[in-house]
Parts: sequence; C-alpha cells; structure tokens
Amino acid sequence: MPRHLAIVLLCMSSTTFAAEGMWTLDKLPQSAPEDNHGFVPDAAWIETAMKASVRLAGGCSGSFVSVDGLVLTNNHCVVGCVSGLSSEQQDHLNQGFLATTRAGELRCPATELNRLEAITDVTERMHAATAELEGAAFREAKNAAKAQIESECSGDDTRVRCDVVELYGGGHYDLYRYHRYQDVRLVFAPEYDIGFFGGDPDNFQFPRYNLDAAFLRAYEDGKPATVKHWFALSTAGVKEGDLTLVTGHPGRTSRLLTVAQLERRRDLDLIDRLLYMSELRGLLTRYRAEGEEQARQAQGDLTFLENSIKVYGGQLRALQSQPRMEDKRQAESMLKAAANARERLAWRAIAEAQQVYADLRTPYVLIERGDGFYSRYFQIARDLVRGAAERDKPSDERLREYQEAALPRLEQNLFSTAPIYPQYETVKFGWSLSKLREALGPDDAFVKLVLGRDAPEAVAAKLVAGTRLGEVAERRRLWEGGSRAIAESTDPFIELARAVDVPARAVRRKYADQVRSVEERHAQTLAAVRFRAHDGAVYPDATFTLRLSYGVVRGWQEQGRRIEAFTTLQGLYTRASGSPPFRLSPRWIEAEEDVDTATPFNFVTTNDIIGGNSGSPMLNREGRLVGLVFDGNIHALGGAFWFDEALNRCIAVDSRAIAEALRTVYRADALVDELLTAAD
Amino acid sequence: MPRHLAIVLLCMSSTTFAAEGMWTLDKLPQSAPEDNHGFVPDAAWIETAMKASVRLAGGCSGSFVSVDGLVLTNNHCVVGCVSGLSSEQQDHLNQGFLATTRAGELRCPATELNRLEAITDVTERMHAATAELEGAAFREAKNAAKAQIESECSGDDTRVRCDVVELYGGGHYDLYRYHRYQDVRLVFAPEYDIGFFGGDPDNFQFPRYNLDAAFLRAYEDGKPATVKHWFALSTAGVKEGDLTLVTGHPGRTSRLLTVAQLERRRDLDLIDRLLYMSELRGLLTRYRAEGEEQARQAQGDLTFLENSIKVYGGQLRALQSQPRMEDKRQAESMLKAAANARERLAWRAIAEAQQVYADLRTPYVLIERGDGFYSRYFQIARDLVRGAAERDKPSDERLREYQEAALPRLEQNLFSTAPIYPQYETVKFGWSLSKLREALGPDDAFVKLVLGRDAPEAVAAKLVAGTRLGEVAERRRLWEGGSRAIAESTDPFIELARAVDVPARAVRRKYADQVRSVEERHAQTLAAVRFRAHDGAVYPDATFTLRLSYGVVRGWQEQGRRIEAFTTLQGLYTRASGSPPFRLSPRWIEAEEDVDTATPFNFVTTNDIIGGNSGSPMLNREGRLVGLVFDGNIHALGGAFWFDEALNRCIAVDSRAIAEALRTVYRADALVDELLTAAD
Repeated sequence: MPRHLAIVLLCMSSTTFAAEGMWTLDKLPQSAPEDNHGFVPDAAWIETAMKASVRLAGGCSGSFVSVDGLVLTNNHCVVGCVSGLSSEQQDHLNQGFLATTRAGELRCPATELNRLEAITDVTERMHAATAELEGAAFREAKNAAKAQIESECSGDDTRVRCDVVELYGGGHYDLYRYHRYQDVRLVFAPEYDIGFFGGDPDNFQFPRYNLDAAFLRAYEDGKPATVKHWFALSTAGVKEGDLTLVTGHPGRTSRLLTVAQLERRRDLDLIDRLLYMSELRGLLTRYRAEGEEQARQAQGDLTFLENSIKVYGGQLRALQSQPRMEDKRQAESMLKAAANARERLAWRAIAEAQQVYADLRTPYVLIERGDGFYSRYFQIARDLVRGAAERDKPSDERLREYQEAALPRLEQNLFSTAPIYPQYETVKFGWSLSKLREALGPDDAFVKLVLGRDAPEAVAAKLVAGTRLGEVAERRRLWEGGSRAIAESTDPFIELARAVDVPARAVRRKYADQVRSVEERHAQTLAAVRFRAHDGAVYPDATFTLRLSYGVVRGWQEQGRRIEAFTTLQGLYTRASGSPPFRLSPRWIEAEEDVDTATPFNFVTTNDIIGGNSGSPMLNREGRLVGLVFDGNIHALGGAFWFDEALNRCIAVDSRAIAEALRTVYRADALVDELLTAAD
Repeated sequence: MPRHLAIVLLCMSSTTFAAEGMWTLDKLPQSAPEDNHGFVPDAAWIETAMKASVRLAGGCSGSFVSVDGLVLTNNHCVVGCVSGLSSEQQDHLNQGFLATTRAGELRCPATELNRLEAITDVTERMHAATAELEGAAFREAKNAAKAQIESECSGDDTRVRCDVVELYGGGHYDLYRYHRYQDVRLVFAPEYDIGFFGGDPDNFQFPRYNLDAAFLRAYEDGKPATVKHWFALSTAGVKEGDLTLVTGHPGRTSRLLTVAQLERRRDLDLIDRLLYMSELRGLLTRYRAEGEEQARQAQGDLTFLENSIKVYGGQLRALQSQPRMEDKRQAESMLKAAANARERLAWRAIAEAQQVYADLRTPYVLIERGDGFYSRYFQIARDLVRGAAERDKPSDERLREYQEAALPRLEQNLFSTAPIYPQYETVKFGWSLSKLREALGPDDAFVKLVLGRDAPEAVAAKLVAGTRLGEVAERRRLWEGGSRAIAESTDPFIELARAVDVPARAVRRKYADQVRSVEERHAQTLAAVRFRAHDGAVYPDATFTLRLSYGVVRGWQEQGRRIEAFTTLQGLYTRASGSPPFRLSPRWIEAEEDVDTATPFNFVTTNDIIGGNSGSPMLNREGRLVGLVFDGNIHALGGAFWFDEALNRCIAVDSRAIAEALRTVYRADALVDELLTAAD
C-alpha cells in the first residue's frame, strides 16, 4: 500500500474503504460502498449477528451453531478446558475428544460464555460523573460511576453480566449487557497434531493447513441451552472475491494512541515483555523435554508464550518501521492543527505520563502485574487475600476485578478443578522470583521482604511444599471465611500475598493515578478533536467487545509472489512430514483414502481482525457460517497500530473442511446432523 | 554530565580531559593535563607497561607479576580452563584450585597468552593496496595485504603472532607483533562462591565484594617462562583521588560509528541478540537445575550468557536515550559540515549498507555466524571442513581465521582436551536448530537441507549419537588428513558442515562485500575528516589491542546518594547470606577470625574501560600493581558508545585484598612470596 494512503485511512470515512474497521454493532456504516458489495445489513441480520455471536471470557470469540446451544470456536481457545479435563490417564489434549452423546459432554473447569443482549449509550452520565476531575479523583469517580451503572444493570442476577465499555479512550461510553453461561461443556476437540498442525512455525503464516476448530455446548439448569439465534453452517462455502463478514471480539488495538504512547510501547513495553517471555519460553521448553508428563503440564503455557512472542515481535517490527511512524507523526500533526490551544495540551500531558511510566514500569509489572510471582498458587492467594479485603467494601469502592459484576467469573476460576502441578509451579515460581531479584536488585527492600536471605529457587520450593491452595476445598474455605480466615491462615502463599499487598497496591495506585488517569483524561479530549475533524466516522479501538468487520476472500502478493486464497486437504497430506508439528494423527492417516482431498481447508480474507477474534464466525451475506477465523497472517500483527489492506489477511478454517472432517475422519454423525439441519 | 559536554568529548583533545580515552601505547597524549596529576609516562614506564601486560586470546587481559612468568588475571577469565580441568571427581570450578608446587600447576586445555613486542605503522602500504577499490575487490585486496604483512612479520615462528590492526575503521593501520605463549598452566583459582560472589545479580553493580582473581603461569620448553618485564604487587594500595593507570585490551567500542550504524545496532542487532540469548538462558537455567553434573556442564555458558545479556541490555538502554542520540546526531552534523561534497557521500553509503544488512542479517547470523548450529561439535566440524579447504590455498587467499597466523590458536582449540558432553550438546544443538527453522521458516530450502522431514531435536540427537568428534584423536586425524579425509568422512557433523558450507560461504561473502566492505571503505573517509577536524587528537575505537587509560580513584553520586569508592572484607562477611550467589565457601567462613576485615576489597575508578579489559592490571605512577580490573558499573555499559566521567566507573579488586586472601585464607605462602619479592 502506498504510504500516503495510510494517512487517509487514519481519517477514513466509511464510504471510501471496505476492509479497515472493527465496527460496533450499534453504529455500523450506513452507506453501501461498492467494496462492500453493496451489502448493508438490515436489523434482523444485525440482531442475529449480535445474539448468535459469543465471547469466551478468557479471550476468544465463538458462535452458536445450533438451536441446542452448540458453540463453534477454535481448538486453541479450548486448550485450557481440555488440559483441565486431561490427566496422565486420559490425554484428551493430544488424543482429541468427541462426546458421542450429550451425557458424555464434559464440563469445562473454568469456561464462561457471554452473549451480547443490548448496547446502551451512557456517555453523558459517565462524563458528568468525571467532569473537571484529574488524577486519583478522576479515576475514583469514573470507577464508581462504572460500578454503579453496571450494578444497576445486572442486579443480583448472576446470569446477567454488564460492562461499561470505554470507547475512543473515554470519548464515548456504552453499557453492554450480556447473558452469561457458566456451565459450558466440551463436545469436540481434535487431536493436538491436527488442531495445531504446523505449530509455532506455521503460526501467523499462510498457506496453512490447520483444523483449529472445537465445539462446546452452553448448558442452563443442567440442560443444553435453547437459543433463538444461531448460524447455520454453509456447505457451499465461499470463493475468491466473495464478501465475508466477521463478528467477533477483537481484544485490543492501539490505532488511536499518540506517538508518545506508541514509542513507549516500542522502546519499553514490547522489548521488556519479549525478553521476559523468551527466557521463560527457554525454561519451559527444557522442562517440556524432561518427560511426557512434563510436556503435558507445560504445553498450554508454551503455546501461549510462543503465540505471544510472535505477536509482540511482529508489533515491535511494525513500530520500528520509520515510514509508518512518520505517517503517525503526520497524522498527529494534522490532528493537532484541528485542535485549539487548550486541547493541544493533552498531547503533552500524555507524553509526560509516559515518562512517569518509564520509572514505574519495572516494579509495577513485577510486583503488581505478577511477573515476579509467576505461579498459579500466587494468583489464587492474591485473589483470596484481596478478594477478602475488597468484599468488605461497597462494590463500587473495590478494585475493578472484585466488584460484584466480576465475582461469578472470579469464583469460577478460583474453584476450578483443573489440576495444579507442584513441580511445575516450583520451576515457574522460582524462576520468576529470580527475575524479581534481578530487576530490583538483591538489596531492594521489597526483594528482601520476599526472599529474606534465601535463594529464589529455595523460597519457591518451600512455599510450594507448604501450600494447600492446590485443594479446591481449602480455597473455598478461605474465600467463604473472608478477612478473618485470611488473617488466620498460615498457608505460605497466603502469607506471601498478605505481605506484598501493601507495596503492590501502592505501585498500582501510582500507576493508576499518574499514568492511566492522565492518559484517559486526555484521551477524551483527543477523541473530541478526532470526532470533530472526521465528522464522527471513526471506529473505536478494539476493547474485547463485539465488532463487525467487512472483507472479501482474497490472496495477496508478496515479494513478487502470489499467495493463493485457499488451501485444500490435499495440501495437508502433502505437507505432513511425520515429525511434530507437521505430524498427522493415526486417525487422519487412516482416513486419507476416504477424505475428499479437494475440499478447501483454510483460506484468507481482507477482514480486519486482531487477537480476541479467534473463534469468530465468518459469515456470508445470508448470515451463514462459511468459515471459522483462527489467525491472521504475519502482516496482520501490525494491525495493532494500522491496517494495510494490501497485506493484512485474516485466516479461517473453511466450513466445508469442518463438515468433511467431522463426517469422514471423526464419524461424528450426530454432530454433523446437528450442524446441517438447515441446507444452504 | 551536562549534555553539551558529551559533544565536546567526541571532539576531545588530550589537554582537556583525563579519564576518557583508550590510548594506543605508541601515541599517548604528550601533554601533562592537571587531571592526569601531571603524570606523563616516560619510555621505560611505557616499555614495562607494554611488555608486562598480556592478552588472553579468548578475550581477556592480564599481566606478568613475577620474573617466573606468573600471570594475574580474573577468575572469570580462567573459567574455561578450570572447567576443562574439572570433572565429576575433581570439581576445581566450585572448590577452587591451588598448586602448592610448580609440578602441581595444570596445563589449561586451550589458553593462549600474547605479549605485545612492537607496533609498526603500515598505513601507507595498506592504503596503497586498496586505493580506489570498492566492494569485493576492496575486501580481497585488503585481506591479501594484511595476510602478506602478517606472514612477513611472523615467518615460520609459531611463537610470534602478528596482527595488522585496523584503527579508526581503516583510517590507520598498525602491525602488532606479539610473543605467543601456548603452554599456560593454572596456578590458582578461587572457589566459585568467592570468585564470583554476588553472581549475576551483582554483576556490573557496586558496592561489590568479589575476589575475581586467578593466577596462571606461562611456560616455554616445559619450564616457567622467564620474563624481563613484570609488575610488582603493591601492598600499600591506593586511596580516594589517587591516579590509576590501566593497561589492557578493551575489546570493542563503537564511539566512532555513524548514527545509521548506531540505529541498526539499537533496532536490529541488540534486540535480536538479546532475544536469542534470553531464550537460551532460560533453556540452560532449567538444564542446570536437573542435577549437579548438568549444573557443572552448563555453568560456563550460563555465566557468559548472563554477562552478555547485561552488557547488551545496557547498550540497548543507552542507545534508547533520545538526548544521547541527539548529541550523536549533532556531532555528526558538525563533522559533515567539515567534510567536502565527495566525503559527505560516505555517510549515505554507510546508511545504505545498513539497509542491505537488515535483509541479510537473519541468514547471516544463523547460517554463517552459527546461531543456528549452537554446538561445540558443529564448531569443530566447520573448522575441520573449512580448514581443509582453506589450507589448500595460499595463506593470503584464505578466510582470515585459517591464515597461517591464526593456525596455532585454531589448532590449540581444535585439539583441546576439554570434555564435550553429548547430552548437553544435544540440548543446545536441538534448540538452535529449532531457532533456525523458526527464523527461516519450515519451507525454506536451507532448513529442508538441514532437517529433511525430521524435528530439530531428533536431528540433534541423531547427529550427536553418531559423531566421533568428541575424540581428540579423531579430530587430529581429520585435520591432518586434509581435504581427502574430510571428503571421505561419514561423521554426521562433518557431513552437515560440508552440506551447509556453500550457502554459508555465500551469505558470508554477501555480507563482506555489500556491508562490511562498504562500511570500511567509507570509514576511511570519515577518519580522514575526523583527523582534519580535530588535529589528529582522537583515540581509536577499541580493537582488542593494548591501550592505556588514565583515571583516578573516585566514587560517584547516584539519585542523590553517594557511592563510596571502596568496600572492605568486612562488607563481604556482612553481605554473605548463606545462599548462592551470596554464599561463602567453608574456607572463607573458617578464616573470618584471622582475616583483617578492614582490608580494602573492591574499589572504583574513572578509568575508561570496556569488555576485554577484564584482568587488566591497574597501576600507580610507579608502575606497581594496585588493583585488578574485573568489571565496570552499570553506567559503563553505555561506554560502548560514549564516556560519561560523572557516572562511568571501572571496578577493581584491591591488591591488598589479593595479598590478604592468599596469605590468610589460602595459606598460599609460596605464591605470596613470589608476588611480594619487591616491597613498596
């Protein structure tokens, strides 16, 4: 894409461009641009799109695909569930899982689904609550108003989840009301070898051959949930050039950040994060090699790490592009020119907050965000300790993650029966304590508070050996016992979480007051300038809320080479080498003769997506499910900061491959019947 | 330091400044600046400084400290030797080593000492050989001229080593003639706990408590070498404000690089290197934890990695300093203003070469520099394969590392009896192959050539299981058998090294012709401009050749806090916690009552040093050894790019602590007697 176009895109209006944009469902572009194939969704289409789409609370998307609450999402989105249901005896992660009857569907230890029901504009109320405030006062007023609105919305109904969503960095606020499903069961997950075929080497690459698909089912009152809105699977599929619509929950983009914020991301956050994760990856890579059981324990974390390292690495390379950053600078200059003198101060205030952050980041990330305490036991201990203290206060005065609206999900996690492995925790925790000491220095008072005179690995071993937080009953006892139970506990992880709580809260407060509040306060100003400059036709940055993206099926050109839009199952068999991560499971090898290898397998489109969109349904204009989004290409990683229609691609599993695999490889007849009740 | 001063320093003349500068011994500042305490070394002082200083070929400095060839250097500089002499039965690395008789001194498997004998200016001859040439022609002519000059100098005498040294990026060339010692024996190394007290957490930190000292002895004809020039150990020591002179071999600085080159270092080299090393560090950290034997195997590599990560991390943070880079830009503008139109093209040419490098770096680093083949077996195989091919050519047409002058050192390494651990090699090699696949992609032709259809770990296990390169005799057979033996070998590592040699040489040639040659060709131009602008009073960037640095004993101010210049042995006992890396060995614990704890232990000075200076003697004006350089403080890491006298500090072991430790803790009477033959 020519450079000047990027500038245009930052100021884009919906009439000039098809693929860029993650639109909220209440403010879809109302014109019918040629590139959108003249498609403007009507109210019924939008309602179905909204109510048949679901969010997986852990960070993925999905959709209802039958009236009986069947949900389609990615295999990589259910890895946590499948791991939690696996053991040395029953290795569903590697061998796959198929429930041939409803009774055989297994409850995921900690999966929550949210289905969006309604969007309400609460901007005026939020702005009124925070008018003229700064710093801590601004933050407290905002949080209190949010909590108040959310609690009015959800009442005492744990099936209702309400979130005040901050758009345009606070320029606009909407209340999102969700129906919450906490009884979610595993129906089908493929073997790891096919569900993650190509592994880390192929991640963010195309051509691709990956059955990254899994099925869950939402239950209510012990029975499969009956849903009004769902997407029928298309057996006709799409072809090159066809319109594709993606509804899903993109997690986070940073397209509206200032240059100072992007530079901080580039020079500080991304590099530090990548170094931390890379070392951890090396540690766990060796741990995995120590035995089959160790491999099983570490697999989920490693997959997450490898994916994150690619994402952050791609973001870093994107932000190192001098021409791209120059575009950002020019766009910012143009916006500044449209601002008045008072508004222009916002940029400086935000830049100064980045300097504050630079000094604060190390302790903040280690002590409060948990990089220095990388253990499931510690996360549990912190939730128990803080949860007890916070629940003694009114909901709207608590830290966000302990307000009433958040408790159902928190409790689900806290009481998850997913196993915790002491040896594995010792390794991770000891290592993270050594990072804590390395970053703050052995003479730092906080480090001494944590380690005393002992070595990090020795502290970790002692704490893990002494804790009972691996037992769900003990966690429940401490949770229900509240502050008193916490104060009396001699569990070493509870003692640690208690001991570090004051300094951890202090650094969190400093970050909230001196960095986040400043950024948010002034982002409101920038949003106002931006709306004025572009007549309101700006989509907000992603916020892990439901968005619609328009695109078309299209390959791309790279270094003079054409990348075709589709792969086939034949390509899978050709590429399979016998060695992981290019190994086929026995089931797929046996099925080779029966499978229709001409079936399209994976394909690419121009839809504008980002992490969080994993599991998103890809629809045709009739609202049929033609694909299942599971990845972007390597260029899509820059999508955190800008969209490049020439190169950014969304990668999906073809609906025809899902049907063919279920029918021919897995002989999952009941599931196929359930999916194909409505013909194209 | 005020920012404007940094600019002055880049253009410094020797009359304005004391501490900055790593001066070659043939061109010392001739004036007597006040800050130098009026000290101008005379010819005798300089001759002793030159001939009593030694270089350890692996990358350290040292000095003769007795007439019988006794050499003082850092403990961390002899770790390779001590590891090579250690085994499960005899763990000298952790338990220390002291030869109480000459007969008990153990030969280091692969240590070489070089003592500088003479410096001769060969600039005219080198410039004449390369005049008007570009690219490959320039490189070939330069290498041929270098090889010719070096071979004329050394003749057939393997005791003579001659290097043409390129200063100011080729603005000046000197011939350095060394006396070479290859029979080097271990006399004393302290226990790991005291020789690396504080470990990685304390590395580059001060206050410090580290006996990072060891003794070697040079032998010739099976007898201790008799040397004319050596430094007597001072028992009087130094005090705050005293003049200190450091002679040593700083490895590499980048103070004269262009802004484009610094940006490449910042955005490409340092980040990629740090990520690679961090992941490797994690891998080896876990390997080390698997058992005592594994810990011993991995210790040397881990120490190296942790040190490198601190160095590169510090360099990255330095280059991220916007004010500092702005200074560099201004200095460059000033230099450009002093250049004529033709000269100014040099900056552009160098900047363009950085773009070429950006595309080339990944394959270059993985395939040629060896990041993709991280195994001792592979290094050996490559030396055998290339060594055979290269030795069939005249010396001056060979790759530099196989020219006659380099062969003694190469052979010493190749035939080193230091053990190689198959399990450890499998882990490292498998991991590096996975990095190769990750970076180039699984479909890359080179990756397929190396891995076929197998997983990286499987390839590594197969090769390690099949190789005989762990046997010195087999290595010797292949080396002596030359091209024919190599062609006939079926050793899997030889086969691999043969298979990858053509692509590896191709990428090396591309880098040499399109990047290095361009940089070097145009650096000559920049050097000429710089000399003209500053009347020749510029010291060259470090080149791992002998330099003299002037400094004074001085603490510093940091964040309003004063850091004192000295620590004492008392401080060591106070800081010892019982847990590594702050654990004292039994010997030190037992000696506490007898030791004079008021003895100064470590101290800081303003000497301008960098990696490679480790083990450098620190002298007073009488030429007595008052300290042993072993580190810089954290600010000294930016010393790669600039010198900041307010903050940069060199860290040394006090000569009084060395004497006290040998006398009281180690009861090394003979060694003490040998060191203290001459009183202060």
